[in-house]
Amino acid sequence: MNATLPAHLSTLAPRPVPAAMLEALRARFGDHLSTALPVREQHGRDESPFDVPPPEAVVFAESTEDVAAALALANEHAVPVIAYGVGSSLEGHLLAVQGGISIDVSRMNRVLRINPEDLTVTVQPGVTRMQLNNEIRHTGLFFPIDPGADASLGGMAATRASGTNAVRYGTMRENVLALQVVTASGEVIRTGTRAKKSAAGYDLTRLMVGSEGTLGIITEVTLKLYPQPESVSAAVCSFPSVEAAVATTIQVIQLGVPIARCELLDANAVRAVNRHDKLNLREAPMLLMEFHGTADSVQQQAGVVQDVARDQGGDNFEWATTPEERSRLWTARHHAYFAALQLKPGCRSVTTDTCVPISRLAECIALAVTEADEAGLPYYIVGHVGDGNFHIAYLIDPAIPAERVLAERLNDQLVRHALKLEGTCSGEHGIGLHKQGFLLDEAGAGAVAMMRTLKRALDPKNILNPGKIFAL
Amino acid sequence: MNATLPAHLSTLAPRPVPAAMLEALRARFGDHLSTALPVREQHGRDESPFDVPPPEAVVFAESTEDVAAALALANEHAVPVIAYGVGSSLEGHLLAVQGGISIDVSRMNRVLRINPEDLTVTVQPGVTRMQLNNEIRHTGLFFPIDPGADASLGGMAATRASGTNAVRYGTMRENVLALQVVTASGEVIRTGTRAKKSAAGYDLTRLMVGSEGTLGIITEVTLKLYPQPESVSAAVCSFPSVEAAVATTIQVIQLGVPIARCELLDANAVRAVNRHDKLNLREAPMLLMEFHGTADSVQQQAGVVQDVARDQGGDNFEWATTPEERSRLWTARHHAYFAALQLKPGCRSVTTDTCVPISRLAECIALAVTEADEAGLPYYIVGHVGDGNFHIAYLIDPAIPAERVLAERLNDQLVRHALKLEGTCSGEHGIGLHKQGFLLDEAGAGAVAMMRTLKRALDPKNILNPGKIFAL
Repeated sequence: MNATLPAHLSTLAPRPVPAAMLEALRARFGDHLSTALPVREQHGRDESPFDVPPPEAVVFAESTEDVAAALALANEHAVPVIAYGVGSSLEGHLLAVQGGISIDVSRMNRVLRINPEDLTVTVQPGVTRMQLNNEIRHTGLFFPIDPGADASLGGMAATRASGTNAVRYGTMRENVLALQVVTASGEVIRTGTRAKKSAAGYDLTRLMVGSEGTLGIITEVTLKLYPQPESVSAAVCSFPSVEAAVATTIQVIQLGVPIARCELLDANAVRAVNRHDKLNLREAPMLLMEFHGTADSVQQQAGVVQDVARDQGGDNFEWATTPEERSRLWTARHHAYFAALQLKPGCRSVTTDTCVPISRLAECIALAVTEADEAGLPYYIVGHVGDGNFHIAYLIDPAIPAERVLAERLNDQLVRHALKLEGTCSGEHGIGLHKQGFLLDEAGAGAVAMMRTLKRALDPKNILNPGKIFAL
Repeated sequence: MNATLPAHLSTLAPRPVPAAMLEALRARFGDHLSTALPVREQHGRDESPFDVPPPEAVVFAESTEDVAAALALANEHAVPVIAYGVGSSLEGHLLAVQGGISIDVSRMNRVLRINPEDLTVTVQPGVTRMQLNNEIRHTGLFFPIDPGADASLGGMAATRASGTNAVRYGTMRENVLALQVVTASGEVIRTGTRAKKSAAGYDLTRLMVGSEGTLGIITEVTLKLYPQPESVSAAVCSFPSVEAAVATTIQVIQLGVPIARCELLDANAVRAVNRHDKLNLREAPMLLMEFHGTADSVQQQAGVVQDVARDQGGDNFEWATTPEERSRLWTARHHAYFAALQLKPGCRSVTTDTCVPISRLAECIALAVTEADEAGLPYYIVGHVGDGNFHIAYLIDPAIPAERVLAERLNDQLVRHALKLEGTCSGEHGIGLHKQGFLLDEAGAGAVAMMRTLKRALDPKNILNPGKIFAL
């Protein structure tokens, strides 16, 4: 159905929506159902490099009951269902590779319950991370997980997202307390409670987190919140080489400094954000760091890191002292992906997502750089290096198939290196469409067989985002 | 088969080990197989209040291959299998309610790989938490999770254990990076990698953590480690009432103080540890606290907590400044369970394990105290109150059925309160045998049905610790 999809997916049979189901959807959803091509196309694309296979129809859900009703119909007719938040997946999660319907949850965008006294909040899945932080700002609390895009929290839970604060605050894995989920048959269940910990039965919450819409559709998310730190300091430091920046990071982590953010940008990434965000950062490998704590503790942390950086030939720290300066820097960092796309007009990016134990990070990045330089494709690197996670993004011309092939080969080589270094093919983007082979290499046939068994048990008709993570 | 088991379990059919399987086990394991009654009885008991239903045979496994071989035979003959570490479960996890064999993994007690540069360690399942900390002490790192007993790390993973440090360092949920697991069919799989985070497929690691031996048998555990803090301070503070101690805790957590340990002992618990460990603590409600960090940060944290405690009528802090004094206090805390059993010779304890959002903790504990006082059973309270988790243990005479009935009624009432307060019936001990009704109340029929579906899919012959969490 689509020449650019991985081969094993392009042979998946389309599963048409029967007329009877479309009629039933229309009767239930009225003008909250759309079959207009532009709407369908919008919902069949994301930030992955694949062409659009659109769903046959889009339901705009406004409640859990809406999601449950749509799923019950899909189950009855054995039709694929794909949940849609803001469309910021990088791994093809939203592509309707077997047809079916999209359930757009972006109108389910209410913050339902803020419990500042417990440091928890419950939101609908269409609430975005920025919206959440705006709505809870008055409580003195914040939610730290921040993928590059202003993603929806339902999507972030579904892909086990993380971002720049994960080195200190963890990922969605650690920060989702409880979920409301609609199952394949349209039943509504709750997983977890607002208690901070529990040993009550299987951890369904964490089974759903990262399941990429293949085991259920998330309709409520209960999250941990954190007190806004008393003191926050951000700094940039340039290094003579990527190696020196990475060596600094490794030492900082091994010393146990509770750094809140520790981001690598290579010279290409710095150049891109300079242009896009009109900044004047030195176009050299850079660490962008943030320290959270009491005033004393922030000073102490920064002191340790400055000493380590100096030993690695790092420049003096440049401090972003006001909230506005800090925000400008971090916004620029979050724009890196879109900024870099503008370095080569019309390009798309093939982005890697390996994550390795921190002691192996220098070796892994060095291999990535050497191989990318040899290949001659434009690229940039950004990394949540405090976690051992980095992205090298190859900028390709989608009209030149050889460039895509080359980028995929580089990605492939890099994943193989990362697996040998006891790492993972995906730190935060998920498997989606084009890391399925990597998942098999990483987890092994037995573990992937177990995942398939779970999928078949919870979704016997294979209607929940079929073809993602693995094809059944 | 056992009068004191919950009714729905006493009707489960025994599943005898066929002679052919016993022969095959004997051929494979030689004198690492025992059918001697004392050995069987030792492996059919734990710290739960139930009588022993022993397994028919005990295999002493020395390797993953041993576990896999035993499971393959059990699978062939559809015979139950229960893994045994040190026997410290409080919830009947080890009781052979349908017969079958016990696989004792206590001889699998090697620390396999220490990676101090990555803050990770990989151990066999029979390594205990104290053994681990002894073996890694030279690295300057430590493993914080500390249930009361010197439990095995395999057992701690299987029950999603936590302990006194969880308020700062999380539970086994947050601290297990990867596992090696033998499945129901005897296949060996790996879940997770040594990378700090991953978005690669379903989170099998966290599905196994807390699955109480019902989805697989853990044969290797890879754990996160932490740098030993530069400075550690422990303090005790007595309060005029349990309420005042709890109010102090709630404020400390809400203020975001990164306290490492915050334990409540009521006057009864203090009395028990005074006698057992020959201490002279004031026999009043007490918080036992510990602060980790730099010297400055520890002082600062303690200062905040002292201010809060003073407002609640807390005495001056008494500091345990030397490692020996600290160790003496915490050892006494860990002995509370066994110390309390000695308050009433021959007694057993029925221990609750509710955990609620921190703002609901005072109400939950007050209800527990009022109802226990009214009932007139001896009891004591200890609590990981920084997490909202506490244990009220009713001391019963196992020869007087009415005492057990009364204790179970109190437990039942308390769980109902905790669920209304948006909490869980189990913070850290697991469901095992006698919280199965609570799990249903807490998670709801739909979520428990999903758990059963997962169990049936991964263990179609129901051989892995059958009758635990739920009876199929």
